[in-house]
Order: sequence, then C-alpha cells, then structure tokens
Amino acid sequence: MTPPIRPSRPRPSDEPARQESLRTRNLELVFRQILGAAQPISRTELAAVTGLTRPTITRIVEELLAGRLITEAGRTHDGRAGRPRVALTLSRKGPAGLGLDIRSDGLAACVVDLTGTVRHLAFAPAAYADRGAADVLADVADMARAAIEAIGSEDLTVVTATLAVPGAVDHGLIRSAPALGWRNVDAGALLRSTADPLDLPMAVDNEANLAALGELYAGSDTLDSFIYVSGGLGIGAGIVLNGRLMRGARGWGGELGHVTVHPDGKPCSCGSRGCLQTYASVQAILGDEPVRPGVTPDAAVTARAESSDPVMLAALDSAGRALGIALSDAINVLDIDTVLLGGSFALLSSWLLANAKAEIAQRVLSADWAPVTVRPAVLGPDAAVIGAALVSIDQIRRHPAVWLMKETIQAAT
Amino acid sequence: MTPPIRPSRPRPSDEPARQESLRTRNLELVFRQILGAAQPISRTELAAVTGLTRPTITRIVEELLAGRLITEAGRTHDGRAGRPRVALTLSRKGPAGLGLDIRSDGLAACVVDLTGTVRHLAFAPAAYADRGAADVLADVADMARAAIEAIGSEDLTVVTATLAVPGAVDHGLIRSAPALGWRNVDAGALLRSTADPLDLPMAVDNEANLAALGELYAGSDTLDSFIYVSGGLGIGAGIVLNGRLMRGARGWGGELGHVTVHPDGKPCSCGSRGCLQTYASVQAILGDEPVRPGVTPDAAVTARAESSDPVMLAALDSAGRALGIALSDAINVLDIDTVLLGGSFALLSSWLLANAKAEIAQRVLSADWAPVTVRPAVLGPDAAVIGAALVSIDQIRRHPAVWLMKETIQAAT
Repeated sequence: MTPPIRPSRPRPSDEPARQESLRTRNLELVFRQILGAAQPISRTELAAVTGLTRPTITRIVEELLAGRLITEAGRTHDGRAGRPRVALTLSRKGPAGLGLDIRSDGLAACVVDLTGTVRHLAFAPAAYADRGAADVLADVADMARAAIEAIGSEDLTVVTATLAVPGAVDHGLIRSAPALGWRNVDAGALLRSTADPLDLPMAVDNEANLAALGELYAGSDTLDSFIYVSGGLGIGAGIVLNGRLMRGARGWGGELGHVTVHPDGKPCSCGSRGCLQTYASVQAILGDEPVRPGVTPDAAVTARAESSDPVMLAALDSAGRALGIALSDAINVLDIDTVLLGGSFALLSSWLLANAKAEIAQRVLSADWAPVTVRPAVLGPDAAVIGAALVSIDQIRRHPAVWLMKETIQAAT
Repeated sequence: MTPPIRPSRPRPSDEPARQESLRTRNLELVFRQILGAAQPISRTELAAVTGLTRPTITRIVEELLAGRLITEAGRTHDGRAGRPRVALTLSRKGPAGLGLDIRSDGLAACVVDLTGTVRHLAFAPAAYADRGAADVLADVADMARAAIEAIGSEDLTVVTATLAVPGAVDHGLIRSAPALGWRNVDAGALLRSTADPLDLPMAVDNEANLAALGELYAGSDTLDSFIYVSGGLGIGAGIVLNGRLMRGARGWGGELGHVTVHPDGKPCSCGSRGCLQTYASVQAILGDEPVRPGVTPDAAVTARAESSDPVMLAALDSAGRALGIALSDAINVLDIDTVLLGGSFALLSSWLLANAKAEIAQRVLSADWAPVTVRPAVLGPDAAVIGAALVSIDQIRRHPAVWLMKETIQAAT
C-alpha cells in the first residue's frame, strides 16, 4: 500500500574502528592518560587506570621518554605511604606546533609546546593593498623561519604548521579571501615554490575556525558550544558545537559576514546586498573618513568613539544592531547560547554589546526561556594564531605514535 | 612570557566506548550485518564478515529469530557451488514503530516495520482553533489506538511511539508551538492523564527534524547533508549534516521561520519583526482573504495561484524571495548545499523555486563556485509522520538487545 523505505544506511558510529595495531593503541592510551592528568602521574597509577600490565607500561613510558613526548617530573607519593614514585608529565621540550596568521593589520606567528603553552608569539605590521599572494606568502615564510629559529635554543622542534587566512578554504585552496583580494590561491604551492621554501608540512584553514579552537582550548571547562565571531576587514565565525568545530559539509560554514541584514542594503564585495559586512566590518564602521598613515583602522574607530564623534557613534550603533540581527539568524538555526566577540569586535565590544544583545533578545525564539550570553573572547587578536599553533600540536597529541615513527626514521637517516 | 593554555580536554572520540557486555556487542554486530546487507545473508556469510565463530553465530541467530527480529528467507547459494544455505533477513513481523504528527490540516499516524516499510498510514482532518492541548492530545491518543489495532492482525507489535509537533521541544516539553498556540505543554503527561491512557513510551520531537530524518531514510545514498524546510502554519527546518540530524546544543536548532528577512518588517507572533514566517507561512501568503469552509489553506493558495490571481502571485513572489534570503543565511552559516522543500512549500514549489534560487545564487558566498540545489522533498506531507515512525523503530534497530530483553520479560510474566 505504501512506498517501501530502504533500510537505514550505516551511520558513522556504526563503522568499524580505524585499524591500528594494538601497540599503537596502547601507546596512545597511556599518552592520553598523561595528557589528561591534572598532575604528574606515576607508572603505577598508569597501570591502574589503563589496565595494562606493568611491563607494557614500562616499555611505552621508555618510548615516550625517548621521543621527548613526556618527561620525569620529580617524585610523587601517590598520596600513600611507601617508596616515592617517579611522576611523569608532558614534555616542554620535543615537538612543537607553529601557527601563522595573516591578520588585517599584519602577520603573526606562534609556537606552542606539547603542554599547550605558548612559547613564542610574534607580530609584524603589514599592509596588503597592491601586493600579490606570492609576495605576502614570502613574508609568511620569513615569519615562520624567524619563529623556528627563536625556539630552536629551547630544544623545541617545530613539526607542523597551520596558516590562518581570512577566507573560505577548500582542501588547502583559498577559494575566496575578499579582505586580501585573493581568489583561488594555493598557498601551499606558492610557499613551496619560493626561492627559499619551508621544509614543513603546512595546513591552511579559516582564521575564525582556528580562533574558535583557540578559545575552546583556553576557555572554561563548561564552554563547549559557542559562536566565535571575528570582526576586522572581513567578518567570519567559527562555530563550536558540543566541543567540536562545526565546519559544515565542505568546510565553508561560518560565513556570518555574508548573512543578510537588510535585503535591499548596500552592495557587498561578494556581489550580494546588505550583508552584515556592509554594516559591521571595520571599513564599514569607519566609512569614507580618511585614516592617518600609521593608525590602524581599529585605533581610528576607537579614538573617534572615545571622543564621542556622533557619526562614529551612529555607525557603531548600526554595526551593533546588524551584528545582533545576523547572530540571531545563526542562533535560531544553530541553537547555540554563547557568542564570543573576537578580533575588532572584542576591542569595540563596549560600543557594540548593548545593541547586539537587544536584537538577540528580541529575535531569538528560545531567548524567551533561555537567555543568550554575548561577551568578548578571552585571547584577543592572537586567538587565531594561537589556535593555529594548537591545531598543529594537536596532531601530535592525538597521534603520538606518528611523531615517534618520524623521530625514529630521522634518527636512522 | 605568555599565558599558559590548559591541556585540551578529552574530546568525545577519546572517551571509552560505552560499557556493554560482549554478548550484547556481538548480537548487535550480527544484527547490523543483516540490517545493512543488500540481500538475505547466510550464517556462513555472517561468520565470515563478523569474524565470530560459527557456534556464536548460531546462538545469536536463534535469539534473533525467537525475538522476531529476523526471519528465514528461503535458500541461497552464496554464488558458489555446494549445498544451498538458509538466508536470513529482517523480519516484517515483530516490533513496529508508531509515528504521530499534529499537522496544520489534521492528525496523521504511521506504522513502520523493522525493514523501514510503511505498513499503515492514516490521516484525519482536524482544526485546532479554540481547542486546548489536552483535547487535541486525546484525539492523538485515539489515532494511536486505531493504528495499533489496524496492524495488530499483521503480527506487528508497536513498541514505541514518537509524536511530531510544530514547535520547539525541550526534553519532551513543548516549549513553544505558535501555530497551535501552545506554550510549555507536557504532551507526555497529558497523554498519560487522559481517561484512557496509552500504555506506550512516547517521545516528542520537532516535526521538521522528524521530516528531515524521513527524507534522509527515503533519499538516495548520496544525500547526506541537506536542509529540510517545512512550510505550513509555521515554518521549521531540520538540518542533516554528514548523515546526522544537527539539533543544536539543546535541540532547538532549525528555527528558520524566525530568521530575520527584513529587520523592520511586519510583527511576528514570536515578538520579533520581519521573520521569514511573516512572509512565507501559508497564512502570510493567503493574507486577509477569507477561505471557504472545508478548503485547506494550501488548496486556497493553489487555486488562486492557478487562476493567476495577481495578488496571490505577488504574495508567492515575495514568499519565494523571503525563503531564499532566510535559506541563504542558513547556508552561509552551515555550508550545506542541498535544500529540500517540504510541507506546503513542496505543494507550492513551482511558484517559490525561481525566486528562492535567485536569492540563494546572489547571497550564498560559496554559490559562486559550488551551486546550491533546491528541490521539493520526496515524501510529501507524510514526511514527518513517517520520520517519526522510523525514529521509533530505529531504537530497536540500534539496540536490538533491549527489545529482546523486553520480549523475554513479557514472556516470563
């Protein structure tokens, strides 16, 4: 009588686990315990929490020590009587992750060690007008080299790098970065083809996504679903849902800057009209007023707002409302109750917050019974570059066996 | 020199697997093979694909047969020479799932068997104006009883039910269903407190979410990320990303009807202004024109559009544009490249599609290099009730051991 429905396809959770050797699995299990422990942990405790035999623990700990992934951190009594035990903790030497960020006001680099501690943070002002992608990326490579050199004396080895760009990235290809005027730029290929290429695997990702991951790492334990919205020349968002970055089906999610605020509004660089960006990018807030050379757009906005310039205050009012409208759309669709304002929005939050919150209170359906929190992000303008460095080191944290294998190969050659 | 970042918290994937007995895990493994097989499968093949011993397979198959989860479906040669083997397949008797749906034009009920085949589908016109929730839910309970009775003669046992409602649901509580005029309605409690309560576990979920799941089950294998948008008295969306329903942090995602189209537009029942609903709900499209008694709003719109009524065509134009604007916002945030129009939007799609597509092509950033597909959903007005029934039976499909335990307990008492 009715259409048959085909049986449900297996869902991802139904798929068999990734094939890994028992040896790798046990090594990663032990490493995760050390990674997740609130304080240094002994071999005895590791055996207890993993259920592995003492000889297995001993062998794995030796491997992790030799690979500079962990270190002996003095002695512990395990809170019990008897002989003190050697406590193990993550190494602050060994592998490190490099983050690079092409920001509206310049280039940034960051190195984090395995503990997630920032060991190097550098910034160089830069402007991009009339500069080609290859030219800008040569400067990026120079920043990377300087960072690698700076941390070399600390026994840290940069293993992998991640580049943050203000645009949509598709398998490493920068499809569109309007703030830079880039379309279809293969950053990896350009970096490899410079006169002095970097010998380092380099991932490329959207800056708002990376900044959101930075905030997730740096934030409180209870912060696990939020929209990080980054203001600047462009506006992007990184969406974290239940502790994971929601990139969308192809990785192009979070384009909050192109959410429509007024359907018949001003033309946007994307070809549409009335996008959030036409109200709330720093350029839109600044308007046509010229900025003195050497003054960043953020500083120019702040100075005029602090002097109560009525035109600037009206532009900030309108930007805050537009931001609230676009965020309400995202919240109605996503059901996420926390918004972190990053980039220029963090700096300008005292002028933006009230209007943004008022629009959200009016426009988000669930706000009637579950209020939405809107607040500045904690990492400031460095969120994306720190997030990029953390994403790089996270590859080692998730797959320590891969690093150990590389170390072994390098030692043998 | 820099802020330490606390070590990353364990992510869900790092958590230990749910503790289940080996017995349950093996039973579910075998059942999933039968569920996922393109055709009936023999015990020998089951042993080969699962790696379990032949005696284990024999025992599990006996359990599944006794519990009426599978059935013997004739003999197969496995494509080889030798003795034919008994082929096993999902049972079309045994457990069944019940779906119920409070639709704008009436109540619907659906029963599906374990194979996902619709075995019963019923609809009763109803109106809700001036009727309380308890009154409407008493009718829902009557629909459920009629469905259970109708399939009783086919050796099917309804195990669990799911009720679709046009609103935001929070742990079974209907927070807000503006189209019904309901706020904070505990449907489960009301159903249990009727004179003749249903003896059946009843989940409550948003109708657009359930309809999206219906479309996911019924759609092609390649359809795994889409926005299902349901038109009617209200407008809701169910978002499927990589084969999973994206409910948001608290289950209130997909409120596309309250995405802002014009910030200064008409007041909406939610307290905001210019929501998609004020342009594209069936009531908004109909306007103030009276509808003859007995004619559904959809039929009234269709009749006037087919007679080229210029006011109606203008209203449909405006609804299509508004729908395209709101969908563009959702796609820019979510990065999902397929939209399925359901409910009234499916019926009216010939008048809505062109404008909706034009707005999406203009407003979605990635549409420049990756076009968005917009098309009517395949299940028509029954999507939500079929989805609800499938969600019910899916509990058994995912956890067959729970059903077997219940069967054993019932047989023993």
